[in-house]
Amino acid sequence: MSKLNVTQKLIKEHLLEGEMTPGKEIGIKIDQALLQDATGTLVQLELEAMGLKKAKTEVAVQYVDHNLLQTDFKNADDHLFLLSAAQKFGLWFSRPGNGVSHPVHMERFGKPGKTMVGSDSHTPAAGSLGMLAIGTGGLDVAAAIAGQPYFVKMPQVMGVKLTGKLPDWVSAKDVILEMLRRYDVKGGVGKVIEYYGEGLKYLSAMDRHVIANMGAELGATTTVFPSDIETKRFLKSQHREEDWRELLPDEGCEYDLHDEIILDELVPLIALPTSPGNVVPVSEVAGKSISQVVIGSSANPGLRDFWIAGAIVNGQSVHSDVSFDINPTSRQIIQNMIENRAFANLITAGGRFHQSGCMGCIGMGQAPASGTISLRTMPRNFPSRSGTEDDQVHLCSPETAAASALTGKITDPRDLEKLFDMTYPKYEQPEMEIINTDMLVAPAEEGEEVELKKGPNIKSLPEIQPLVDSADVPVLLKMEDNISTDEILRAGAEVLPFRSNLPEISKFSYSVIDKSFYDRAQKAKDDFGGHIVVARDNYAQGSSREHAALAPKYLGQVAVIANSYARIAWQNLVNFGILPLEFIDLDDYDKIKQGDVVSFKNLREDVENRKNITVRVQKEEKGSEPIEFEVKHSMSDRQINILLKGGIINEFKARLSNEEVNADHKNTVTGNSRQQVK
Amino acid sequence: MSKLNVTQKLIKEHLLEGEMTPGKEIGIKIDQALLQDATGTLVQLELEAMGLKKAKTEVAVQYVDHNLLQTDFKNADDHLFLLSAAQKFGLWFSRPGNGVSHPVHMERFGKPGKTMVGSDSHTPAAGSLGMLAIGTGGLDVAAAIAGQPYFVKMPQVMGVKLTGKLPDWVSAKDVILEMLRRYDVKGGVGKVIEYYGEGLKYLSAMDRHVIANMGAELGATTTVFPSDIETKRFLKSQHREEDWRELLPDEGCEYDLHDEIILDELVPLIALPTSPGNVVPVSEVAGKSISQVVIGSSANPGLRDFWIAGAIVNGQSVHSDVSFDINPTSRQIIQNMIENRAFANLITAGGRFHQSGCMGCIGMGQAPASGTISLRTMPRNFPSRSGTEDDQVHLCSPETAAASALTGKITDPRDLEKLFDMTYPKYEQPEMEIINTDMLVAPAEEGEEVELKKGPNIKSLPEIQPLVDSADVPVLLKMEDNISTDEILRAGAEVLPFRSNLPEISKFSYSVIDKSFYDRAQKAKDDFGGHIVVARDNYAQGSSREHAALAPKYLGQVAVIANSYARIAWQNLVNFGILPLEFIDLDDYDKIKQGDVVSFKNLREDVENRKNITVRVQKEEKGSEPIEFEVKHSMSDRQINILLKGGIINEFKARLSNEEVNADHKNTVTGNSRQQVK
Repeated sequence: MSKLNVTQKLIKEHLLEGEMTPGKEIGIKIDQALLQDATGTLVQLELEAMGLKKAKTEVAVQYVDHNLLQTDFKNADDHLFLLSAAQKFGLWFSRPGNGVSHPVHMERFGKPGKTMVGSDSHTPAAGSLGMLAIGTGGLDVAAAIAGQPYFVKMPQVMGVKLTGKLPDWVSAKDVILEMLRRYDVKGGVGKVIEYYGEGLKYLSAMDRHVIANMGAELGATTTVFPSDIETKRFLKSQHREEDWRELLPDEGCEYDLHDEIILDELVPLIALPTSPGNVVPVSEVAGKSISQVVIGSSANPGLRDFWIAGAIVNGQSVHSDVSFDINPTSRQIIQNMIENRAFANLITAGGRFHQSGCMGCIGMGQAPASGTISLRTMPRNFPSRSGTEDDQVHLCSPETAAASALTGKITDPRDLEKLFDMTYPKYEQPEMEIINTDMLVAPAEEGEEVELKKGPNIKSLPEIQPLVDSADVPVLLKMEDNISTDEILRAGAEVLPFRSNLPEISKFSYSVIDKSFYDRAQKAKDDFGGHIVVARDNYAQGSSREHAALAPKYLGQVAVIANSYARIAWQNLVNFGILPLEFIDLDDYDKIKQGDVVSFKNLREDVENRKNITVRVQKEEKGSEPIEFEVKHSMSDRQINILLKGGIINEFKARLSNEEVNADHKNTVTGNSRQQVK
Repeated sequence: MSKLNVTQKLIKEHLLEGEMTPGKEIGIKIDQALLQDATGTLVQLELEAMGLKKAKTEVAVQYVDHNLLQTDFKNADDHLFLLSAAQKFGLWFSRPGNGVSHPVHMERFGKPGKTMVGSDSHTPAAGSLGMLAIGTGGLDVAAAIAGQPYFVKMPQVMGVKLTGKLPDWVSAKDVILEMLRRYDVKGGVGKVIEYYGEGLKYLSAMDRHVIANMGAELGATTTVFPSDIETKRFLKSQHREEDWRELLPDEGCEYDLHDEIILDELVPLIALPTSPGNVVPVSEVAGKSISQVVIGSSANPGLRDFWIAGAIVNGQSVHSDVSFDINPTSRQIIQNMIENRAFANLITAGGRFHQSGCMGCIGMGQAPASGTISLRTMPRNFPSRSGTEDDQVHLCSPETAAASALTGKITDPRDLEKLFDMTYPKYEQPEMEIINTDMLVAPAEEGEEVELKKGPNIKSLPEIQPLVDSADVPVLLKMEDNISTDEILRAGAEVLPFRSNLPEISKFSYSVIDKSFYDRAQKAKDDFGGHIVVARDNYAQGSSREHAALAPKYLGQVAVIANSYARIAWQNLVNFGILPLEFIDLDDYDKIKQGDVVSFKNLREDVENRKNITVRVQKEEKGSEPIEFEVKHSMSDRQINILLKGGIINEFKARLSNEEVNADHKNTVTGNSRQQVK
């Protein structure tokens, strides 16, 4: 491996533990950390529990972008808490309204050649700058901030060669939609997608952000772009040319997997409800009436994305049936949109402007009307994620969205040439953007003096029990493929405000799938001491929110049995002490039913010794004979240790009581010592 | 009365019924009607129930400004319903995000010399243009749209002479705060406030809007300004010079009451929690730390108001403890703010921009953090109206708000001269504003063909029972002075989405005062067939929302006994069949307790014949002797008739079944026939 691709270079430069063999666990040094508010309050509570003095990463930033709708005290209280915690623990603080984490981080903090973890599944967006940026559970981020390596299975690197140039009316969003059309929502699991080739030169850094961001929807570990002349141009436009370094794949380097996209051949694409993987050409569904268009989000955050939408609607008025919602991604972008007239064009055509933040992308506002189609440039359209139960969210490019806003129907933007005698507006990138750092608060000099401001809705984490040795617990849910974390613990205005209040938020566990789950879990906890759930492939895909593990654990979830897991969620399960079991014989899925009671014996010993684990199923039907089958797990030794203790919080607690934690962290930050790694 | 003031001229030109003697009921012809969405869905359901074919007013406009936070389908569904209803019944429709009703109406539809009713308590804002604009319950607005006169007691006209000129750093908001300092929240009850005098020439039409809008907080029937050369200038700037007519008070005209404000003597003022009447000079409370500043709302909606805030913060950054929320009042104003740099100045200094609408003014977003001070240019600070239970909302001018945003403390804006070496920025009014009518949908040509779009949360109104003849019902609440409609049925994101779903919204009745009310009312309905409540002066001040009568009625409220009532709420009680009784001997208030059971006999006959009504009180304490006292009512014959039938809906239903309604309406629109008046 003397000739390396960009991903391998990034990993090699940061490798602290393990070997770079796909599938083997590696530990890598983390340079940067990204937190958002929905997951961040919990991370900050974890940092508090760990007794952290000061963040060990080069840069860690607490963003506030998810919970900006303040309909009572809770979100505003959280903002004050997060500011105080960022000050105390040595993080930057991006104030509410300053913008969505991913584009702001790229504009202000991202650096080629660096590694980053983020408690948000779209963290890979920073891969657009030649970073290795991985979305993960908040606990992993807390550990990285405390100076621990990040542990992940060495991914396969899939090289995607881009050739040619995008046609008019087709843009970066169509590139990632093409990838989703080819690979669907689990096609990227266990892989890093690395783009290379001549086609790159026509994709700006922000175009690459669009592709890297929504690479999360492929289930990929992350997406990586090289750091080239275009990256340099971008950093210069951000007044940060000095942060650039070149990072290119070695000529003749190899990839574990291969694909190629001929950009010239792409057409406008659209993801139909209710999965980002349901991709078809726009022309196939053109003509359907719509009630809403949303432009923005971290999946189309760039100045170009708003400019092109503004240029398309310029001088016209959006259709009277359409709510035309504009979701600017940062204050900086608004300032630049004022200068390049995009803002005025969009407002004049009928735009409803919203404050900079995640908004409808995570169900925080602008839910569509019942039974109507909403077209969004956002990354996800999982069921009811928009806030409306029977939503019909379609995902598309700003070009398709703006064209459809004008006609009131799903419209292939290429048809604008005929319909409105329009030629494709050509965007000129500004050499220098207006930048704005006023809403970024630097870490306090004397953090230890800062007192945490905890409002009444911010509750300490409850104690979590170690793994039981034996159990007789019911199967409370049997699920299918591709269950998302939105179905396990949905986002939205009703739920997210309780993210720092576990007893309250746990009431929403699996409520999208089965509203009776919470009550049944409470009963199972009383009657059996817990429960398990069963699923097929790609369990817990989607958002990284660790509440999707923490809340079920709080309700007594002992284990999940599934064919396979989404990567982040699998780690979250271990980190919170839920045993992630895998079917060995996939037919065994059919042998188990909701309502059955399963028995485990010698669980601790079998898990520790990597023995197959016997599941004895007592069927719900009276008189049925119990059946048995074996399942396995894929945890590393480090993870086994964490799981046995009931999760990483318990492990940290134990360390703290041994007063080892500070010494360990000091060693870690140099990157030389491995002794803190279990 | 040959020499008339402006108010008298407006009434005389529109008088259909009664005499212009203060205190006597008059019926006036209504030219315009204003609806907003929070009250409008109910009005539209009422129009449907009445079988209206087409609005009879010259202009009626359905605005959508209250419920813009779409966290599920309900608000978006309502928007579609309101559009369909506006089309069907012949109203203009101002689309979501187009702006707050009052400034948009003033800019696009208001005309000197016209009358208007609106289902929003700040409707008097249109008085800034020389209109007689009255806020009232939705039912009254529905009746006006259907061509009925509007009935109100002939108010006293209070002439307020303005002399001199406002000092630097003092603006229109301080004028109305001075009025509130002098008269408190019930000082305007039964009165029209008419401003005149030389000082007017320094107050732009939008400055007058600030004063007229928040005149609602005085409890005034409305506020009236003359239509003068400044009004002409404003209409010209709106490209509507042709809509101007002069309307001045006759020289030597008289007013029923008198006051004078010497503008030169005013200082920056602020209303402390939790009443707009708690006014003190800013200097008295300067130095207190704040967590939020909100600029905007219908009480400071003008371009100048945003411009001055932008000019004050220009080139600086708001304090890091302060959330600086900008609430632009219309898309048109945003477009003009882009041109005059106010928008860029506010964003650059740290502003969080929100879509155009009422926002935090009615608790729909940007609720402040627990136990912290929020400074707002809004009109109201009733308890928990912001959405935060222990809120500390202060009301002030944009100058005071912007100054405080910079320092993080309540700051007298005059101190900016010392603190920042700032001179008072001088605003230059643009001769012509950019106007924007794209988001105003004209009424349909063939409205009868339009089908109403009713989402699943829009429920038909339940049947309401006529007034009972006798009752033995408990006193469920005993309240103090100045209970607001926000306390009877609060606004906010949790409540307002149910405005078209009476069974759901009634669960929030009086919940601010007593969370057990709903359950106790349900029990009282089962056990006694209903209940009454008791209050002191100015019962149900504040917002005009008729749910504050309809919901208690739905829960079985037979009567209220109070010393006095806020005008709109008093009419709403009658319109929905709740008997508004008044103590004759104010000491009797002390004889009645929460928990007592009161008996009424011969109620229908006594009400009809205007006899005093005997209240027999069975004390809750065992063994106590019952006591008796007499109460009265102040209803007109027309109102008595409505009340006996159980409210105006029942009256309309009866008319419809007699197939008289269309004939009646036809007669009414000419203004000649009185036969439809009962």
